Amino acid sequence: MTAADSSRIAEALRLELRRGTLVLAVLAVLERERNGTQVRKDLGEAGLNIEEGALYPMLRRLEDQGLLASSWRIDQSRKKRFYLATAEGRRIHAILMHDWRHHDDALAKLKGLTSDVDD
Amino acid sequence: MTAADSSRIAEALRLELRRGTLVLAVLAVLERERNGTQVRKDLGEAGLNIEEGALYPMLRRLEDQGLLASSWRIDQSRKKRFYLATAEGRRIHAILMHDWRHHDDALAKLKGLTSDVDD
Repeated sequence: MTAADSSRIAEALRLELRRGTLVLAVLAVLERERNGTQVRKDLGEAGLNIEEGALYPMLRRLEDQGLLASSWRIDQSRKKRFYLATAEGRRIHAILMHDWRHHDDALAKLKGLTSDVDD
Repeated sequence: MTAADSSRIAEALRLELRRGTLVLAVLAVLERERNGTQVRKDLGEAGLNIEEGALYPMLRRLEDQGLLASSWRIDQSRKKRFYLATAEGRRIHAILMHDWRHHDDALAKLKGLTSDVDD
């Protein structure tokens, strides 16, 4: 395996992890109504930077799936699309956050299991 | 959207989240050498149940990617394949755990951001 293969594999695994997290993060942000720019700002301030080219397709997909609703509104004299989690989106967000905590606990336990390796 | 659609969407999102976690968990377990049965047992004890039909393809894939190495050995009079993370697997595991902590922090921050909604 070349260094390029290895870095490609690491990148694919990081993206896979990140993709699941981003859905959770977007659903968290959209507990309150935000436009796309505000969503990016909230995510960025939490440490999750996302390109517009990745965010908007995700918002559209989550809306198609019924987890978000959007509406056009005037904000500072400009028409902008605002997004908000639906009841279903909030329900799924709660399930995913529960899973996240469960996985985090599992990873902590596994770390404990192997932390005495090589002692 | 029907209830079946909704439950299918929730399930797909949960699986996406779980898939990323499982790679991390398997790499954590394989800081020490384990056979497939032992890997399943370790994961199960940490709260991550995985079917054999899902675990073995994942082990094979991680081995193909150079993150694990395996060797046949005799264990209790039976020939079994044992797995161990390679140096590259340990390196990528450390990167992914770092990402995990980063995402966990981000989700905590976002929760703080919206926890006063509806107050």
